Amino acid sequence: MTEMTAVRRSRITPEREAELYAAVLDLLREVGYDALTMDAVAARTRSSKATLYRQWGGKAELVVRAVRHGKPGKLEGTDTGTLRGDLHALTSREDDCTMEQNSALMRGLAMAMHSNPDLRQAFREQLIEPEMAEFKRLLQRAVDRGEIRPDCPALDFVVHMLAGGFVVRALIEDQPPTQDFLRSYIDAVVLPALGVPTTS
Amino acid sequence: MTEMTAVRRSRITPEREAELYAAVLDLLREVGYDALTMDAVAARTRSSKATLYRQWGGKAELVVRAVRHGKPGKLEGTDTGTLRGDLHALTSREDDCTMEQNSALMRGLAMAMHSNPDLRQAFREQLIEPEMAEFKRLLQRAVDRGEIRPDCPALDFVVHMLAGGFVVRALIEDQPPTQDFLRSYIDAVVLPALGVPTTS
Repeated sequence: MTEMTAVRRSRITPEREAELYAAVLDLLREVGYDALTMDAVAARTRSSKATLYRQWGGKAELVVRAVRHGKPGKLEGTDTGTLRGDLHALTSREDDCTMEQNSALMRGLAMAMHSNPDLRQAFREQLIEPEMAEFKRLLQRAVDRGEIRPDCPALDFVVHMLAGGFVVRALIEDQPPTQDFLRSYIDAVVLPALGVPTTS
Repeated sequence: MTEMTAVRRSRITPEREAELYAAVLDLLREVGYDALTMDAVAARTRSSKATLYRQWGGKAELVVRAVRHGKPGKLEGTDTGTLRGDLHALTSREDDCTMEQNSALMRGLAMAMHSNPDLRQAFREQLIEPEMAEFKRLLQRAVDRGEIRPDCPALDFVVHMLAGGFVVRALIEDQPPTQDFLRSYIDAVVLPALGVPTTS
């Protein structure tokens, strides 16, 4: 969080903020992004619309902030000592049921991003870029440990591989990406592409 | 094409059918799936709605049939003698400009599938399953040639890998999946995961 947003938000307590984000996620699950209005958020959370706009700037920012706040674990704290351990740990940040719910929510948001450039931008700046930076550090540690060769061309595509597992599983196979599925996928695809033995 | 659909469609000429599919794709690009009506298709193609319903059954089937007809090349005819050659050949079925247009169209349809189970079903039955079957034959040939080990676990995930390249490129990086990008991705990710040397 930047200093500026910290200042902007200084007048609400963390508890109040958490309550508000939870209400936004509930509304998102109920009506979807396009039908979600700041009026509905204001009513549900007993806030004024003016407050919402002052604190978050707009619907896209508020939604992305709520998604970011609702994320169960931190990539940041993950450091098991092996790449395989780290990647597997990422899949256990959520139980399968939560993962299915969140996966439906995220698919809905991905659809909404298609027609809402402001949502796409907020998502990229607030969520994807910070996660990607953290993910790069995780991969760099594997390079530093000698697990991945520094010139391995698949290093540029780790997020593509992982996202493919999610998307195809959800859209084409119509199944939620369970922890078992994701671990098999990591072992079968991601680690071999990176030249890392899966029996480590 | 099943015998039944061949019979059902016997009264229109291939030229007329091609014209009609082209009009459906134009309309799709103009208004998107949700706003596309059979009325609009009938008006644009000077057909009666009754004919459209009799020949195709409904909007989802008509759209999927049009997409299938508009596909530039056939996976079926691809057999270069190496897996790398086959996969690279798949990326050259379209030039980059057509690929960008089609990729926008397909993303729009993927979004529409989210909320239209009938479109999802038609898409799966008419397009994905036949292509997957053909794709499996392509991979099986590589196994038969000894390029891929028959027990290679990544064999189950080739479509996931490829789709990841497309989706992340389009949604997160906001760039069209060009031929150059796809070929780098195939060489960096798909072939190494399958244990195939990329210098072949």
